[in-house]
Amino acid sequence: MNDAATAAQGPVASPDYAALSVETLASRLGQLPAMRQRLGDDPADWQVREVGDGNLNLVFIVRGQGERGVIVKQALPYVRLVGDSWPLPLSRSFFEYHALTRQAVRSPDTVPEVFHFDEDQALIIMQFLTPHRILRQSLMDGTRHEGLGEMLGRFCAETLFRGSDLSLQAAERKRDVALFAGNHALCDITENLVFDEPYFDAPLNGEIPAVLQPLVDELRADADLKIAAQQLKARFANHAETMLHGDLHTGSIMADGDRAGVIDPEFVLYGPMGLDIGMLLANFAMAWFAQPGHASDGDDRVAYRRWIESTMTAVWQRFTERFSELWRTERAGMLYPARLFEDQGQVRASEVALSRRLGTVWRDTLGFAGVEIHRRTIGLARIVEYESIHDEALRARLQGQGLRYGRELVLERGAITDVDDMLARLRGAGEGA
Amino acid sequence: MNDAATAAQGPVASPDYAALSVETLASRLGQLPAMRQRLGDDPADWQVREVGDGNLNLVFIVRGQGERGVIVKQALPYVRLVGDSWPLPLSRSFFEYHALTRQAVRSPDTVPEVFHFDEDQALIIMQFLTPHRILRQSLMDGTRHEGLGEMLGRFCAETLFRGSDLSLQAAERKRDVALFAGNHALCDITENLVFDEPYFDAPLNGEIPAVLQPLVDELRADADLKIAAQQLKARFANHAETMLHGDLHTGSIMADGDRAGVIDPEFVLYGPMGLDIGMLLANFAMAWFAQPGHASDGDDRVAYRRWIESTMTAVWQRFTERFSELWRTERAGMLYPARLFEDQGQVRASEVALSRRLGTVWRDTLGFAGVEIHRRTIGLARIVEYESIHDEALRARLQGQGLRYGRELVLERGAITDVDDMLARLRGAGEGA
Repeated sequence: MNDAATAAQGPVASPDYAALSVETLASRLGQLPAMRQRLGDDPADWQVREVGDGNLNLVFIVRGQGERGVIVKQALPYVRLVGDSWPLPLSRSFFEYHALTRQAVRSPDTVPEVFHFDEDQALIIMQFLTPHRILRQSLMDGTRHEGLGEMLGRFCAETLFRGSDLSLQAAERKRDVALFAGNHALCDITENLVFDEPYFDAPLNGEIPAVLQPLVDELRADADLKIAAQQLKARFANHAETMLHGDLHTGSIMADGDRAGVIDPEFVLYGPMGLDIGMLLANFAMAWFAQPGHASDGDDRVAYRRWIESTMTAVWQRFTERFSELWRTERAGMLYPARLFEDQGQVRASEVALSRRLGTVWRDTLGFAGVEIHRRTIGLARIVEYESIHDEALRARLQGQGLRYGRELVLERGAITDVDDMLARLRGAGEGA
Repeated sequence: MNDAATAAQGPVASPDYAALSVETLASRLGQLPAMRQRLGDDPADWQVREVGDGNLNLVFIVRGQGERGVIVKQALPYVRLVGDSWPLPLSRSFFEYHALTRQAVRSPDTVPEVFHFDEDQALIIMQFLTPHRILRQSLMDGTRHEGLGEMLGRFCAETLFRGSDLSLQAAERKRDVALFAGNHALCDITENLVFDEPYFDAPLNGEIPAVLQPLVDELRADADLKIAAQQLKARFANHAETMLHGDLHTGSIMADGDRAGVIDPEFVLYGPMGLDIGMLLANFAMAWFAQPGHASDGDDRVAYRRWIESTMTAVWQRFTERFSELWRTERAGMLYPARLFEDQGQVRASEVALSRRLGTVWRDTLGFAGVEIHRRTIGLARIVEYESIHDEALRARLQGQGLRYGRELVLERGAITDVDDMLARLRGAGEGA
């Protein structure tokens, strides 16, 4: 076991926890039926590779003879991106497990199947989505994925509706609210890194390019923007509406051709419906801004930008279509009960209620999208689509466009009527300085 | 022990639970220091009286030789108002205990002191507020209480602010969210009886006077009103903003002269800030409507109505004053942190944020006040101020005025600017048919 991990682990549930390594994995997990069934009975033949490129965890791909392999994901007792100076509870693995299994039931074929969970070791063995790649990579390469927006819109509709008081029995939802309230250490990261630190000169933010500094100063002096960000933070922290993924950016999506899967829900929380969709649309928007930085002689990325736009449209449209279907056919929870509407012959009123509800989700979506753009551009956790652009002047110009767009989304979230309007403003921002 | 209670107790935590009676109380509680310190060492001398006039519990006044006495409150495993056909978990006593002790710390001298708590017996021994009477009685008698509005406004400001993410550390608030999520059976009562059942012909509603039926039919056909009631229900159920009393009507307040105390927080939940104040103002408003039904030859109650209005004004004004003081001096939670505002020299932005926050609380307050008026007039749990009016025609006219006012509060909650506007509309409604 890693000494640093031992020192920093803090609130570890089990004294038996020990981080896996490429060398120890086969011997430590070799007796598990979940492994042997898929990889064969001789652990000595298994090939183990550590591929964790995220910010928090160990991730191993384990392959057997002629097998597709499995993913072994283990939490570390600290933030991998920062180091053991930033302890983080292993319990996030427990919450990820409970999120993954609920998502699998609520939105079939959208998340990796869980084969085994070990709470003491903070370890999940799950389906290896292969030959999928992280979507963020596709968005830099200019790779299109047919049906991606529809799949993500469906995932959001099904998980958000079915985790809420529109669907669950009240006591069951309250039990889950209590369960996931335990994941406060991960919420704390979002609360600080998304809603606060981008808006002042916080030590963790990292460097701001000199040419962007005047714009960043302007954002940080904008009282309306900061108040709005805190209003969104209050919704994030207090509006326990449904079970969210909590970190639904394009690095949490694996895609291959027309297939895709959503991974890494360890930031799971009960929160406002607009958060997941907002983060998702924000990350597509930033990829859109970044395209000129990834253009080549043969591809100016203009057509690829159109594909990103169509994917954003598909996310929102499929979300609203599927959410509306579920509203009409599965509204068995305590909110907007049929006994008050359909059973009284007031179907029209139920449709009006649905439309108002979607309006609220839309406004939240725009707000969360705006702050997500800000924090991924000038906060701690930045995105490779921008960071990999070598031409510094071009990079800063594209980042500046995105920052202004983010502010517009936050401050105009009550005025932006629909996804067409959102995209028209995106194109407008892309013509700016 | 009561046989019916045994049969209905359902999810009782302890097999040792047994309901107290006047006969058994002294022998069962006679060894408790909490009792003997206050009542003397000879339980045979204690005088026990059962006074539970609420809807749910056993309440005993126990007096010793020359002592003021104590209150012994014990939950029954069913809803006392309805009977053992409606089981209700004893755990509500646990939640009441945790609410009372938090309220005592957050808002000194507003709630009875807890002397002893027995979770297995669902039993709280607490301070006897005497010679206080239930405020609802004062409101029928025409008794004024100096400073009452100020005290209630302070109670709301201090409990709502200090139980929220404006004050608590985030992990502590989330632990309390998880704790009180267990009180779902009591929330379920509010969710059904306040937000749903008044708006359709539910069996538990009880009789509607024939002369009121056309107006009630009109309310139940009003799609905008029912949608708004469900939006408020969603805020009640999902907006886990602060620890609320949860049932803050004038039957949960004891008053004597210029002293008052808030009792019975067993409906405690994490919910939206506007709920407690809204229920409170609604119950003052209904008492206002009911005054002509309690007039006598010597007192037309016109002046007393002015006192009720001044008390409503004082509740809201003292609430906003004290909440603003706490915002400026105790804002140590994670929302609207000083590092983003005051520390950046943006004091004005912090004041704007406060004003917007209070605006949201105000709109919620109006909405919750409106549905509370409806449910206390045409739902299961009605109020004695109306029910005790013998002149049926007068009673129905006053109830009708209140019902219309309730609808106005719900539907115009975005337009009613302040408490003066709220009271102007109250007087307008009181001139109606």
